[in-house]
Amino acid sequence: NNRPTFTSADGRFSASLGGQFQYDIGGYLRDAPGNPNNRGVRDLDSFGQNLRRGRLLFGFRYDDFTFNITPDFGGSPDGSPTLYEANFNWNPIRPLTLTLGYFKPWVTLQDSMSSNDFLFLERPSIVEIARNIAAGDGRSSLGGRWAANRWFASAYLTGANYGGNSTAQGIPDQTGGVARIAGRPYADPDIDVHLGLSGNYAFDIRRTSTGQTLQLRDRAELRIDQSRLIDTGSLPADHAYAWGPEFGLRWRNFLLQGEYIHIGVEQARAGAAPRPDLGFEGGYVEGSWVLTGEPRLYTSSAAAFARPKPAHPFSLAEGGWGAWEVMARYSVADLNDKVRRGQAQATTGGVFGGRQEVVGLGLSWYPNNLLRFMLNWDIVNVDRLNPAGTTQIGQRFHTLALRTQLAF
Amino acid sequence: NNRPTFTSADGRFSASLGGQFQYDIGGYLRDAPGNPNNRGVRDLDSFGQNLRRGRLLFGFRYDDFTFNITPDFGGSPDGSPTLYEANFNWNPIRPLTLTLGYFKPWVTLQDSMSSNDFLFLERPSIVEIARNIAAGDGRSSLGGRWAANRWFASAYLTGANYGGNSTAQGIPDQTGGVARIAGRPYADPDIDVHLGLSGNYAFDIRRTSTGQTLQLRDRAELRIDQSRLIDTGSLPADHAYAWGPEFGLRWRNFLLQGEYIHIGVEQARAGAAPRPDLGFEGGYVEGSWVLTGEPRLYTSSAAAFARPKPAHPFSLAEGGWGAWEVMARYSVADLNDKVRRGQAQATTGGVFGGRQEVVGLGLSWYPNNLLRFMLNWDIVNVDRLNPAGTTQIGQRFHTLALRTQLAF
Amino acid sequence: NNRPTFTSADGRFSASLGGQFQYDIGGYLRDAPGNPNNRGVRDLDSFGQNLRRGRLLFGFRYDDFTFNITPDFGGSPDGSPTLYEANFNWNPIRPLTLTLGYFKPWVTLQDSMSSNDFLFLERPSIVEIARNIAAGDGRSSLGGRWAANRWFASAYLTGANYGGNSTAQGIPDQTGGVARIAGRPYADPDIDVHLGLSGNYAFDIRRTSTGQTLQLRDRAELRIDQSRLIDTGSLPADHAYAWGPEFGLRWRNFLLQGEYIHIGVEQARAGAAPRPDLGFEGGYVEGSWVLTGEPRLYTSSAAAFARPKPAHPFSLAEGGWGAWEVMARYSVADLNDKVRRGQAQATTGGVFGGRQEVVGLGLSWYPNNLLRFMLNWDIVNVDRLNPAGTTQIGQRFHTLALRTQLAF
Repeated sequence: NNRPTFTSADGRFSASLGGQFQYDIGGYLRDAPGNPNNRGVRDLDSFGQNLRRGRLLFGFRYDDFTFNITPDFGGSPDGSPTLYEANFNWNPIRPLTLTLGYFKPWVTLQDSMSSNDFLFLERPSIVEIARNIAAGDGRSSLGGRWAANRWFASAYLTGANYGGNSTAQGIPDQTGGVARIAGRPYADPDIDVHLGLSGNYAFDIRRTSTGQTLQLRDRAELRIDQSRLIDTGSLPADHAYAWGPEFGLRWRNFLLQGEYIHIGVEQARAGAAPRPDLGFEGGYVEGSWVLTGEPRLYTSSAAAFARPKPAHPFSLAEGGWGAWEVMARYSVADLNDKVRRGQAQATTGGVFGGRQEVVGLGLSWYPNNLLRFMLNWDIVNVDRLNPAGTTQIGQRFHTLALRTQLAF
Repeated sequence: NNRPTFTSADGRFSASLGGQFQYDIGGYLRDAPGNPNNRGVRDLDSFGQNLRRGRLLFGFRYDDFTFNITPDFGGSPDGSPTLYEANFNWNPIRPLTLTLGYFKPWVTLQDSMSSNDFLFLERPSIVEIARNIAAGDGRSSLGGRWAANRWFASAYLTGANYGGNSTAQGIPDQTGGVARIAGRPYADPDIDVHLGLSGNYAFDIRRTSTGQTLQLRDRAELRIDQSRLIDTGSLPADHAYAWGPEFGLRWRNFLLQGEYIHIGVEQARAGAAPRPDLGFEGGYVEGSWVLTGEPRLYTSSAAAFARPKPAHPFSLAEGGWGAWEVMARYSVADLNDKVRRGQAQATTGGVFGGRQEVVGLGLSWYPNNLLRFMLNWDIVNVDRLNPAGTTQIGQRFHTLALRTQLAF
Repeated sequence: NNRPTFTSADGRFSASLGGQFQYDIGGYLRDAPGNPNNRGVRDLDSFGQNLRRGRLLFGFRYDDFTFNITPDFGGSPDGSPTLYEANFNWNPIRPLTLTLGYFKPWVTLQDSMSSNDFLFLERPSIVEIARNIAAGDGRSSLGGRWAANRWFASAYLTGANYGGNSTAQGIPDQTGGVARIAGRPYADPDIDVHLGLSGNYAFDIRRTSTGQTLQLRDRAELRIDQSRLIDTGSLPADHAYAWGPEFGLRWRNFLLQGEYIHIGVEQARAGAAPRPDLGFEGGYVEGSWVLTGEPRLYTSSAAAFARPKPAHPFSLAEGGWGAWEVMARYSVADLNDKVRRGQAQATTGGVFGGRQEVVGLGLSWYPNNLLRFMLNWDIVNVDRLNPAGTTQIGQRFHTLALRTQLAF
C-alpha cells in the first residue's frame, strides 16, 4: 500500500501511518402526497452531511508482533472522536494471526470487506444488525485467523465494545464468540467462486440494573439522518445469535455476491407474560460491473473482494479517466416475529420491529488508488406496525447521497 | 515550514506532521468598589489556565490532491478532544484550490490570519460573532479559492459545523454561503496596502423542534473564563448574514489593520408579537510595531499578514534576542438593536444583547520561528441592560493573560 | 529507546512517535457465604476488560526546547479519548528541565515510576489518593526539575487538571504546589539505595457554587470495575496536603521499596457543626525478584527504578525466553478519622471513609523490550462503616487480572 513507513536501521521495527476519510453529502426525499403512510411519522433530514469515517491508522511492527491503534474522528453522526481499534497481534507462522484487544472480528462476507471497498455506502441492515450481537467495530476480542490462499478460518472470544465499559460498575460484561469459515472452491484469473459460513453468539448478555436486554435496530442504509426506522425495542434476552451462509462470484470485471442471515433471540422469562424465542431474518444480493474493465480481485487475507485498481489513473495531462463502476443491490431485513396484524405484540410476546426493503443503484468513480467518489440512489420501503398492531408507522422514501473517499 | 515530511520514492506521495500548542494563563481583575454596576452579576475567573489550541496537523499530498486532518486537544475550554478540520483538496492549476469537507472557509481579514499570527489572544468579538453565522472553524464546506500574488477570491457553500450533526434526526442542516475578495492595490518591499470585502449568509438556518433560531454572543476576548457577557439570547430567525470591508497597511515593521462588520438577522414572524429585522455592528482597529525591525510580511495564499520571523533567534551562545513586538487594539461589538432604555425588549421585538468595548495592549516575544510568548492586557467595558430595560447587567474589568505558543 | 524519529537535515529539529498500550482482562471473585459483610453491598464485575492506557506519544525537539503531546484512547474506564499531557519544556543546561503545561509533576516514588515499569497493575491507593490533591496526570504545571546522577529535586506550581476547566465560569481554579527531593546516598553496580521525600499542597481548592470541597477515594487497585470502596465523600475544605518519605533498595536482581504517606485536610467552618482538621494515612511495601537475573536499574532522570531489560529476548528460533519476574506487595490506605464505632460521623465532624488493605502477588513476563505480560492476584479487605457508624459496608474479595502491555 501507499502508507508512509518508518523502519529502524536493523529492520526489526517499523511504524506506518494510514488514513481513511469518507465524507457523505445527501438527503432523504419523500413524496408526501403519494404515501398516506407517512402521516404522523417523523421527518428525515432532507439535506445534510456527515464525516462517516475520519481515521488515522497508526501501525507498528516488531519482528512478528504488530500493534494497531486507529482513532476515528468521524462517526454516525460525527462530532465525538472515538477509537476504531487498538489491538496487539502475533504472527508466529505466516497464515496465522493471533489477536488481543479492540478489534473487528471476522463475521459475514460483507463485514469482511474493507469499508473502502463497499459496493454501497452502508452495509445491508441485516448484516449491520447481526454483526453487532457479539462482533462489529471495536469489539474486545481474543482469538485468531488462519488465512491461506484458498481458504480462511477464524474464531474469537468476544466481550464488550470499546466504550461499553463506561458505565460498568458491578456488572459482568457480555461474553460471546464469533467464527467464520470461507474459501474459494474455484479460482482462476477470470473467476473466483467464494463460499462461506459465519456466525456470532452472545453467550451471556450484559447484566444491567434492569436485567439483560438486547435491542436490534438499524438506520435506513444511509447515515445522514440517524433515525432507526426498524427497531425491536429493548428485548429481555439471556442469549442471542446470528448466522448465515455467504456466496460470491467474480467473472472478470463483474461481481455478484449475497448472504442470508438468521438471528435468534432467547427471551428471558418473567412472570406470566409470554416470552417465546424470537427469530428474525434478512439478506441481500448485490452486483458490480466495472465499466472500464478492472476486476474486483479477491483478498485472501480477508476472504472478500476488494475494490478495482484503476488501470489508467485520472490525469488531464496523460488523458487517463480512472475506473468507473455501476452497482446494484437488493437488501431486506425483517424484524417482525410472533406478531399478527391487529393483535398487540404484548399478547403474544412477539415484536413488531418492522420490515425494511432497500433497492439501490450506484455509480463509482476511482480517479486513482487513493480516491473514490460514490453516488448512491436508494429506494426504501419500511413496513412497520405500532406495538398495538393497528397503525402503520413505516415510511417510503428515496435517498440520494455522494461519498468522497480517500484511503491509503 | 519546519514540518517533518515523508516523501515516497517516486515523489508523488508525501505526508507531513505539524503541531500547534497555545497555552494561556491569566485572569480577570475587577475593581469592586469603583463600579456599582458590578453588583449582582456573576464573578469571572480571577486566575486560571486553558489549553486554547493543542493541535496535531496531519497532511497528505498525492499529485495535485491534498488531505488534511487536524485533531484538536485544546478548546474553549479544553477538556474534550475534537476535530479542527478534515478536508480534501484539489489543485488543478496553481492558484486554484477546490475544497470539500470540514474546513475554515475564508471570511474577514482577521479570520484569514493564522491563529499563530494574531496580534491579540482572541479575534475581536464582532469577527468571532460574524464568522460563526455560516463560516468559522470546522464548517462543512464545498468551494474554492483563487490566490494569486496580488489578489484573492474565494467562495464556498457551507452546511453544519463538525459536531452539528450530533443531534440531527429528521431536521435539515443549515445551508449557507461565504465569499471573500481581497487584494493588494499597492505593494512594494516596504509597503503593503490591503483592501478586501467579505461576507457570509445563512440561507436557511437549521430547523429544530423549537423552530429556527440563532444566538449571537461572545466571550470578552479572553477564554480563561467562558462567560459570554454580550448575548442576544435565542432569536427566531430564518436567515442571517454578516458582511464588511477590510483594510490593512504595512510600512516596514509597522502594521495597521481594521474592519467594520454589519450583521443582519431576519426574524421569523409568529403571532402578533413584533419581529422586526435586526441589525448589529462592530469593528476594530489594531496595530503592531516590531521593535527589532522584522516586517509582518503579506501572505498571498491567505490575503493576510503573517507574524514576524526573528532575524536573530534567541541564543545564549550567539547572543541573539529574537524578535520583540508591541501591539494595541480597540474593538467594539454592539448587540443592541430596536431597544430603548426603560422599555422592555418584548414590546419592540428588539434585543438588549449588550455593547462591548475592549482596549488592549500587548507585548510579544518570538525567540525563534517556532516559539512565541504573548502578553495581553485588556480593558473591557460591557454595557448591557436586562430584557426589561431597567437594570444595568454589564461589567467593567481588566484582563491580564500570557500565551505560550509553539507552532510549526 | 525504539521510537521512530525524524530529524531535519540541519539536526536542530526532530520529531518522534511513541506508543503505550495496556489492555487488562480480569475480574473480582467473592466468596459469598464466607463473608456475611458482603450482604447489601453492590456487586463487582466478575469478568471484564479495559483499555487502561492507549497512548500515542508525539514528541518534538528544537535545539533546547521540547514539546510533548500525548492523546490517550484508554482510561478508567476506556471509551472517552482524552489528553494525557501537552507540555512545553526548556533545557537550558543539562540537568535542568523547565516545564509549562499539562504534565505529571513529580511526587512520591511510585508516581515517579513509569506506568510501564510498575510492579503491580495500579499504584497503591494511598499514592493514588495523595497525588491527586495537587499533582497527578494532566496537571497544569509550571516549574522545574534538576536531575543529576545521584540526586534529584523538583518543584512546580500547579493548577487544574486537563478538563478541569470544562465547567469554569466565574470561579478561580485551584492553586497548589508540589515538590520532591530524592537521591541515592549509596550506589554501586550491584546496589542502589534510594531515599526521598515529597509532598503536594492545594493552597486554595477550587471554589464552586457549593463552596470548596475535596473528595478522597480510590478503586480497589484494579480498574476493571470502577467502584470506589473507600471514599470520604465530599469534604468542605479550604486546603489539603499530602507528604511522605520514600525508600528503595536494589540488590542485583532484587528490589524492595516502600512509602508512608500522610494526608491532611483542613475543613472549612460552617455554622455550629464540628469541623476538625482531618488526617489520613497509608503506605505500602513491595518487592520484586527477577528470576532470570536482570536488574531493575535506577533511572536518574526520574529518581525511580525501571523495569528489567530481558537479556535473552523470546525467540523460538534462538531459544530465548525473555525475562521473568515475581512481585509481592502489601498496601494500606486508611480514610477513617475522628470517628468511633457506633457514633455517627456528623457528631464529631469526622468521616468513615474506610480502611483498605491489599495483599498482592504478581508474575511478569517480558518477552522483549517492548512487550510485557503481567498477572496480578490481589486479596482485598475493605473495612468501612456507614456514616451512622453502625453497619459494616466494606467487603472482602480477591481479584485476578492479566495485563498485556506494549510500550516504546
